[in-house]
Amino acid sequence: MTKGSINVSVENIFPLIKKFLYSDHEIFLRELVSNATDATMKLKHLTNIGEAKVDYGDPKIEIKVDKEGKKLHIIDQGLGMTKEEVEKYINEVAFSGAEEFLDQYKDKVEDAGIIGHFGLGFYSAFMVADKVEIITKSFKDDPAAHWTCDGSPEFTLEEADKTERGTEIILHIAEDSTEFLEDSRINELLTKYNKFMPIPIKFGMKTETLPKPDDAKEDDPAPTQEVDNIINNPNPAWTKQPTDLEDDDYKNFYRELYPMQFEEPLFNIHLNVDYPFNLTGILYFPKMTNDLNVQKDRIQLYQNQVFVTDNVEGIVPEFLTMLKGVIDSPDIPLNVSRSYLQADGAVKKISSYITRKVADKLKSLFNNNRGDFEKKWDDIKIVIEYGMLSEEKFFEKADAFALYPTVDGNFYTYQELYDKIKANQTDKDDKLVILYASNKDEQHSYIEAAKAKGYEVLLLDSPIVSHLLQKLETTKEKISFARVDADHVDNLIKKDDSKISKLSDEEKTKLDELLKDVIPSEKFSVQLETMDSDAAPFMITQPEFMRRMKEMQATGGGMFGMGNMPEMYNLIVNTNSELVGDILNTKTRKKQERLINQSLDLARLSQGLLKGEELTNFIKRSYDMIK
Amino acid sequence: MTKGSINVSVENIFPLIKKFLYSDHEIFLRELVSNATDATMKLKHLTNIGEAKVDYGDPKIEIKVDKEGKKLHIIDQGLGMTKEEVEKYINEVAFSGAEEFLDQYKDKVEDAGIIGHFGLGFYSAFMVADKVEIITKSFKDDPAAHWTCDGSPEFTLEEADKTERGTEIILHIAEDSTEFLEDSRINELLTKYNKFMPIPIKFGMKTETLPKPDDAKEDDPAPTQEVDNIINNPNPAWTKQPTDLEDDDYKNFYRELYPMQFEEPLFNIHLNVDYPFNLTGILYFPKMTNDLNVQKDRIQLYQNQVFVTDNVEGIVPEFLTMLKGVIDSPDIPLNVSRSYLQADGAVKKISSYITRKVADKLKSLFNNNRGDFEKKWDDIKIVIEYGMLSEEKFFEKADAFALYPTVDGNFYTYQELYDKIKANQTDKDDKLVILYASNKDEQHSYIEAAKAKGYEVLLLDSPIVSHLLQKLETTKEKISFARVDADHVDNLIKKDDSKISKLSDEEKTKLDELLKDVIPSEKFSVQLETMDSDAAPFMITQPEFMRRMKEMQATGGGMFGMGNMPEMYNLIVNTNSELVGDILNTKTRKKQERLINQSLDLARLSQGLLKGEELTNFIKRSYDMIK
Repeated sequence: MTKGSINVSVENIFPLIKKFLYSDHEIFLRELVSNATDATMKLKHLTNIGEAKVDYGDPKIEIKVDKEGKKLHIIDQGLGMTKEEVEKYINEVAFSGAEEFLDQYKDKVEDAGIIGHFGLGFYSAFMVADKVEIITKSFKDDPAAHWTCDGSPEFTLEEADKTERGTEIILHIAEDSTEFLEDSRINELLTKYNKFMPIPIKFGMKTETLPKPDDAKEDDPAPTQEVDNIINNPNPAWTKQPTDLEDDDYKNFYRELYPMQFEEPLFNIHLNVDYPFNLTGILYFPKMTNDLNVQKDRIQLYQNQVFVTDNVEGIVPEFLTMLKGVIDSPDIPLNVSRSYLQADGAVKKISSYITRKVADKLKSLFNNNRGDFEKKWDDIKIVIEYGMLSEEKFFEKADAFALYPTVDGNFYTYQELYDKIKANQTDKDDKLVILYASNKDEQHSYIEAAKAKGYEVLLLDSPIVSHLLQKLETTKEKISFARVDADHVDNLIKKDDSKISKLSDEEKTKLDELLKDVIPSEKFSVQLETMDSDAAPFMITQPEFMRRMKEMQATGGGMFGMGNMPEMYNLIVNTNSELVGDILNTKTRKKQERLINQSLDLARLSQGLLKGEELTNFIKRSYDMIK
Repeated sequence: MTKGSINVSVENIFPLIKKFLYSDHEIFLRELVSNATDATMKLKHLTNIGEAKVDYGDPKIEIKVDKEGKKLHIIDQGLGMTKEEVEKYINEVAFSGAEEFLDQYKDKVEDAGIIGHFGLGFYSAFMVADKVEIITKSFKDDPAAHWTCDGSPEFTLEEADKTERGTEIILHIAEDSTEFLEDSRINELLTKYNKFMPIPIKFGMKTETLPKPDDAKEDDPAPTQEVDNIINNPNPAWTKQPTDLEDDDYKNFYRELYPMQFEEPLFNIHLNVDYPFNLTGILYFPKMTNDLNVQKDRIQLYQNQVFVTDNVEGIVPEFLTMLKGVIDSPDIPLNVSRSYLQADGAVKKISSYITRKVADKLKSLFNNNRGDFEKKWDDIKIVIEYGMLSEEKFFEKADAFALYPTVDGNFYTYQELYDKIKANQTDKDDKLVILYASNKDEQHSYIEAAKAKGYEVLLLDSPIVSHLLQKLETTKEKISFARVDADHVDNLIKKDDSKISKLSDEEKTKLDELLKDVIPSEKFSVQLETMDSDAAPFMITQPEFMRRMKEMQATGGGMFGMGNMPEMYNLIVNTNSELVGDILNTKTRKKQERLINQSLDLARLSQGLLKGEELTNFIKRSYDMIK
């Protein structure tokens, strides 16, 4: 038996890093700026605890593009490296510098968060550069070091004459990566990845206008000065305590996050938890809009103020991905598959923590200012209703704040609605029937008929409402929902009282035969009903069950095959209406048919079913009638 | 100055691979099966050229789950390795075995495609296993070797007693990866990644029903036998020559690709190119459907029959991502960012090759069976119209086959349409006006009015049609599009002939004043027109420009801010109609108002603008009128 050690030949490591390590070459800059930030934060820590006897000062990180020289410089004023440290940390790929630092100062480091998560980052430089230089001077008293490597495993290391503390990385940008010599591209990357990193990042200069001196004349131009162009905000709102922030701070941060977003957010939720995982962040409920560009602004995931991704699928519960804002957590595993994420214990806890915080916030908004909550309901209902459908815990909590608006603009909680309609809307089988409409205009005449009975009519117009009703019907006891046009009003909520019919049974039979003769049975199923004499003579309805199943299938779910069922309508004929009596008593068959067809057209018009040529003909006839 | 060699310490390589190399742990199985396939294909090649004097036979790859032993076995009957080869290829991470093989047999290897693209794959085993064994016997006469490694750089290598040629990999699955000991999960992975790999892959056994023997009795059960369960089709349709495939073969392959897809594809495009890049594949135009599950079936990208991804963004032009099917190309760089992909020369060529092939196929379908092409138009128009908008080259080619359907069910090419309507639909300024409708029902009366003039009316109902019209208007010369309800028919195409007015100028002024008094000016802008006496008395129109800009903004684009403009309508009053004469001559102001309002209601009804309470009241009035 042989024993041995696997030999990793370094000739193969660089192409490996270049090709496989990161799917996206552009992240090299994030990595290098992260390293520079870490080096600065470490120095801060060492000076704080007295290990480094130097003046920490007010350090910056500077990025410089040298387009002619085809070089990109990343310069920090952090702790720097001695020659020995370069040999140790840089010449060992996958160097464990961060871990060692952590080990060494374990007792003293209070915030482990300052250790970068991107330890391998330095070598990502070779994804875009064919030669990399490091010029570095340690905060210790050693001479500066100059390391050069052309991407082969050979390097050179010599003394340098750098006098200021810190590290300068020089990338000799490769032919296929010259995009990274464009100011605009670098600016784009810094804005994307480093906008909220904790050390100021300078990229070029900008002109600032100064206040005019007191003795300036009217026409004098305001004086200006050149100042460092700092691209980041080192202290973003989410890193602060909620108690230190005003409402305007949250709004301003929203604008900082989404500069192209003109609408103000409706409200925000500040996330802040240490145990059992570490997570900070601010989520915003946006105003709903159809603007697709704005919809592209998504929740951004950070780790220690470094942007990671705006794809939070699997981390944030699906129903909350419509929200906007920031989540910052070192505890979310990166570079893993979605199925892995969903199985990960920490991620599950994070997800349910976020759900709970959102529910709590909604409850407190509802309790503290119900009027304002009602005003915002139209913008937030989709999120809440979708959450009720998809997360059982949220469904339970939502009972306290989910609103059911009526066509008259009242808003009830479920319990309030229940108490309000219990007496009047319970049918003879002791079932509570909740009436709703999906569109005030289209179902106007049906709504009016229900209101005439003193019934409340809800206005439920979200695309997923049929799923939600289904869920409510199976959760709550002895209730059912019916859309106002599912039947005529006396049948929607069946009570014991029976109407007296003006027509005899014989007349009814005659009428029924006549109607079935004239009206195509494949389109309408005729149904004679004894109703109030002033209710509509003809009325078209569509059974609740069938319609809802079709709607559910259109939005995913429901019963298989229902989507392709033909539309089925009932034609309800009010035998007590004057017009129906007229039809029966009209002498000639031709006139009877004309009356029936005109009435049918009007009923179809009321349901939005009279279209095309039939509508054109109806209108022509109507013009003739008024002429 | 020091010179030196960067030292890659191997302790750090395994966590690196485990954490960073692949974002998705599940791909370890794809890698190992790919290696097994390569080993088998190489042996085939060596026997073919006489380098290996063994019987190639009918080799399989077998996957076995040992749930109790927490082991997963991948067994091939390929060329195997000698002890020396294990030392060389396995103990050197990032081993360059494939390249060396290629170099050695360069002259003899005709199909370089047999070299795997996943050379690093073996080490991905450590993403899911804490110990890996290799038991392997070379086709050469050497004894078998047994290699074991627990993920540290230490390994052991000894002789083994394996007698059959080939390699067995044994993964001792780690605690956090026990999902890969579930048959269902392994089956899922094999189906996802290896469904079309070129060597049969066995996973368990299955029961096959045999034909009954001739002397069997009626009641005898059919005999069965246990056979290998082969999960893949080693010879998928796209690897064959188009001339060897029938229409049914393409349809069957579609079902193989998308087992949950019940609709047949409309037609297919076989891609097959060697130079300047290597690409094969079959694309399908699907039947359009609202079924979201089916929409999830996307184009799949393979490399040498190994599934890579179903995200082909950047590789296939965006307008073709609605298509389905397979693309297989070793020339597409993997693991790179989208922006890199779009800049890559080879990918650009691939993308424009696909566009060209699709355009050619559409043209030949149109030429060979125009009737069939017209029948399929509704299903394919979105792709074609979107392509015309987004790809200039496709726009030019589409002139030959893009169809313009009319409301009467005729289909014209642009040139045919032009020739057909040139004489009748050129206005007095020598501009050709092409009329269209977006909905036959909603615009019925307007369509009828245009047809009465002998005009052709197109039916253009895609959501992006306003963008396409804009493009056509700027590309073709002296044409404009107008929707039939953009104005009354005489104004849509202005000719020189002037109508004689029945009303004097004085009467017109009187009428104008009366109408403006009764009709709310914030909703309708009244416009008196001298039209045919039997044309509608009142008619509501919406100017083309305004409507189109609003539509364009709703679907992305258009002029900024137009989306929020209020709807503006014109009310066209036909001064030659009898009814309008009646209105003018009616004695009482009250009756005049009633006539005007009823006429306005009818005009609004015709445009779908009479809704809600106003519609309910209109219907009530109408019931009363017929009573």
